[in-house]
This record gives sequence, structure tokens and C-alpha cells, in this order.
Amino acid sequence: MTATALVDAVRAGDQRAAARLITMLESGRAGAQDALRALLPFTGRAHIVGVTGPPGTGKSTLTDALTKRLRREDKRVGIVAVDPSSPFTGGAILGDRIRLMGHSEDPGVFIRSMASRGSVGGLSTATGDAVRVLDALGCDVVIIETVGAGQSEVDVVKAADTVVVVAVPGLGDSIQAIKAGLMEIADVFAVNKSDRPEADRTANEIKAMLRLVPRQDPWEPPIVTTIATDGTGVDELLGAVRRHLAHLATGGRLARQRVERRRAEILLALEARIREEALRLAESSGIFQDVVRRAAAAELSPRDAAEEILRAGVRR
Amino acid sequence: MTATALVDAVRAGDQRAAARLITMLESGRAGAQDALRALLPFTGRAHIVGVTGPPGTGKSTLTDALTKRLRREDKRVGIVAVDPSSPFTGGAILGDRIRLMGHSEDPGVFIRSMASRGSVGGLSTATGDAVRVLDALGCDVVIIETVGAGQSEVDVVKAADTVVVVAVPGLGDSIQAIKAGLMEIADVFAVNKSDRPEADRTANEIKAMLRLVPRQDPWEPPIVTTIATDGTGVDELLGAVRRHLAHLATGGRLARQRVERRRAEILLALEARIREEALRLAESSGIFQDVVRRAAAAELSPRDAAEEILRAGVRR
Repeated sequence: MTATALVDAVRAGDQRAAARLITMLESGRAGAQDALRALLPFTGRAHIVGVTGPPGTGKSTLTDALTKRLRREDKRVGIVAVDPSSPFTGGAILGDRIRLMGHSEDPGVFIRSMASRGSVGGLSTATGDAVRVLDALGCDVVIIETVGAGQSEVDVVKAADTVVVVAVPGLGDSIQAIKAGLMEIADVFAVNKSDRPEADRTANEIKAMLRLVPRQDPWEPPIVTTIATDGTGVDELLGAVRRHLAHLATGGRLARQRVERRRAEILLALEARIREEALRLAESSGIFQDVVRRAAAAELSPRDAAEEILRAGVRR
Repeated sequence: MTATALVDAVRAGDQRAAARLITMLESGRAGAQDALRALLPFTGRAHIVGVTGPPGTGKSTLTDALTKRLRREDKRVGIVAVDPSSPFTGGAILGDRIRLMGHSEDPGVFIRSMASRGSVGGLSTATGDAVRVLDALGCDVVIIETVGAGQSEVDVVKAADTVVVVAVPGLGDSIQAIKAGLMEIADVFAVNKSDRPEADRTANEIKAMLRLVPRQDPWEPPIVTTIATDGTGVDELLGAVRRHLAHLATGGRLARQRVERRRAEILLALEARIREEALRLAESSGIFQDVVRRAAAAELSPRDAAEEILRAGVRR
């Protein structure tokens, strides 16, 4: 299939073409960037929702519940499940996919897993590309769901218009668990598994922490209690997510936020390219083995060594 | 204080001089690299131990318990606590530091927190530099303790000779929680808070997962159950950590591993330097604003934009 045919197929809503293009983009295949560029004018319509939080909070089940709810309104939903950990751990994502296969017969739901193939920048860029393809495919909502809540996940989920941070009552020190940069990026909190004891306490702890986070935006992140497994609170959660989108739509916020997002995405793409470039530079410099040897012999610090490689590369 | 005086003071075991040099290195102050270079011949003596794992597993308390145990043998201990998340979360590190202040009167313990000031490469390099300073200061053991267990933490903790991965029974899906690339880098597992129910099950799960991880080294990571708060199992943990060092000492493994580590450190330092250069050029040339604008107008993908910035930087 030519790039043009692929573009046309994606625009016509062909899920297999979308899957193929995402794979091509992920693996840096020839023509993939051209196809993506051709699709860019047809993006920007989907509401992009990030779902993140510590492991074991039920993010997948909540994503599933939100999807079912959106399907009742006949909305088309794309799900990008992101696991920044090593390729070895692909199994968990597979588990998620199997669970989400409840939707597999539904042409209104597109599910895609993304695993790390190296750098955080690379994964974030690949995720952003997948979201753009699903947007161009005609999804009304694209959910980016992360496996954990480390810095990589925070970077990945920044691509969303609205970020839902999922917590649960009594997960170790819940405060410690959600503090990794999540407070600042949360637009909506879900306290999931809220039939467990102390759900109110968890909600209050989040409320107290939110007061400490400096915010430029007047939006106050609502805290919704949910039980994803039986659907309790899912309507309220979707309502809160939509109120946030409505908030963004006022005063040009969404446009400004998307410029910010592009900026962040470009920086992450740049990181990925820089990583490639560093390796290329190190290997083509002709002095990499030598500086590694000298660093191992305690003659050079890593920074000195990097400086020598950089100078050797520029001189060439 | 001149660089030479600083070097002499660190070599004489002066903790304040070490703290000052680490700060100078972190902020790229003049003379810092010269001082570090002068100290390099006096490094390579400390056993560098990484302690990582999901939030809420008690890594700080376990680090504390290990430190107390080492102090009973009159070993000098350096602790580098690393938090790659946003500067806002510095408070938690502060909490750790306050808790660790049980050692504050003890000249045999040196504690230092490192927070992210930008890139992972930058943080990893700064952490490595801090470890080198503590090594030259005369610490017998330097513990690198991470706050979470994301990809950044994995990069940081790779600087250790021996990596301890901490898990707890019943922390959500414990398997899901420890899978973020940690299985491959763990040399020793601690199942902490092992007075909780299902500690054995967690140990067995780890054992089962380990069988799936391909290993080049014949070392089989032992799994030790601990209760950091009352010291249970801490002797066994330290024993396992030391057996790992003894294993490394055979067949030239430690030397080979340290060459590998230098190699990785140099690449991270090189990335940090290329990033500085690329961003400086992109901003000074005005290209950055231009590509952000064009990406926001759906004319460029992030990857295209990154390519333009990098080309502009390389062309000069």
C-alpha cells in the first residue's frame, strides 16, 4: 500500500490501515513520516484524555468503563496503552489487551499498546504519533492509558488535553505513590476502588495536597470516587472530564495548551534524536573506545569524556 | 577555597568540602571538573549499592537500617537520595533527610539529596559525580537510593555495583509494580514489610518472574525477606549484598562491569551536552519558535521539527 493509499484509508476510518501506519511510525519505516504529515491537517478534533496513576489502582478497568460509557453515546474511542518499561514486560500489556478484548468486535473502539523501544523521548513521540493517527481516523475520544506513574508516564500523558490521575484508598502511602509529578498535571482525580475503607480520607488527602500545588489555571481539579468494576461513579467521572474540556474551550485555553504540548513533544522528539546522535557521534568519533578506557582507568570524568567526543565530532 | 584545597579536604575526609564540591559539580561551576578529575585516582574503593523499587516499599527505612548495620562495623557510609520527579516534590526528599537525621551527628554517615534539574542524562551524571566524590571521601559503601522506580531511576541506579530491588507484599499487583525494567537489573531482592500477609507469595512471584529474565551472568539474585522498621532480615540482606560483591570480584567481573558503567555514563553525559548545545542553538537562531509555530499549525510532525532543529545545530 502506498503512503497516499494509507492516508486515504485512515481518513476513511480503516482501523487496519491505522494499525499499520502506527507500526510504521514506531519502527521509523520509510514513508511513515510523509503519511503522518499528510494526516496532520485532519487532527485536532479528538478529545485526548490521559489516564495515569500508580500500579494497581485499576486504570485499565476504569479506561474500560469509560469506553463502555462513551460507546453508549456512539462515540468512537481510541485507546493507547503505554508501558515505558522494558520489552520483557510486554506480558502485562498483553493481559490488558486480552481484558479489553470485550471491545474487540466493536468497530467503534481501537486499542493499541505501545512499549518502550529505548528512550522515553522515543516512546512519547511514538505515543503522540499514535494519538494523531487515531485522531485522523475519526476517534471522538482518544484515551492514553499508562501502566505505572513514573516520570516516563508523566511525559507520555502530558500529550493529553485532560489528565485523569487514579488513586485508591490505602495503597501504601497513597500520597507518596501519587506524588511523582502527578499532582501538577492532574485535571481530574478518580479515587477508584472507593468501596474500600478510608476512601474519604484519600480524597481529603488529595484535596489537602492540591492546595500546596501552585496552579496558573483557575481550574480546580475535581475528585470523583469510582468503583470501575461495577461502573459506580463513571458517569460523574466522564462529566468531570467533559467539564474540563469545556473549561479549556473558554478563553483560547485549548489552543494555547496545544501549542505548549507541541513544544513539549518537539523537545521529547529532539531528546530521542539526540540519543541516536550521541551514539552515532560516539561511534564515528574514533575515540569512544579510548575515552571509555581512560574513564575506566580514572583518568577522565564522564563529562570530560563527553566533551572530548563532542570536540572530536565537531572537528571532523 | 581553591580547587586544590577542596581536593585535599575531600581526601582528608572533610564532609563539608565534599558537600560543596557536589554542589559545584551539580551547577557546573568553574573548577569543579578539575577538582573531580584530581579525585578520580582515589575512587573505585567504595562498594556502590543501589536501592530502588516502587514508592511505598520502604526503601528509605531499609537504607537507614542497612546504614545502622554498617555503622556497627564502623564502615563509613555515603547515601545519595535521588528524585528525578519535578522540583515541587523536593519536600519528600526533605522528609527522608529529616528522618535520616538520626545519623546527622555521626561523622561516619554522609547524606546527600539530588533532584532533577532537567534531563535524565544530567541527573545521572550529577549522581555519578556525587558517588565519585563520596568514594574519594573515603566511604566504604555508597548507597544510591531512588524515590520511585521509573525509567529515570533505572538509569540512575545502573551506576551501582549491586542493585537491591525492594518489593512489598500486597502492594497492588506487586508484579506489575516491580516490572518497570527492574527485573533485569536486580542483583538482590528485598521483600520488605514481610510481616504483612502473603510475603511468601510475593517472593515466589519474584522467583517465577526471574526464571523468565534472560541473564548472561551465572549470579542468581537471592530474595531476602525483611522488616526494615525493626531490623529483621537486614543482616541477611547485607550478607546477600556482600556475596554479590564477592561474586563480582571473581573472574574480573567488577572491572568489566565498571568499564560498561563508564561507557553508559559517558553516553548520558554526551546526551546532556548535545541537548545543551541543540537547545542553545535552536533558541538563539529563532528556529525553535518557528518550528513550534509550524507544528501547532499542523504543518510539521514533532519528529520533523526535531530534525530541523538538529540539522540547524549540526550545520553550524
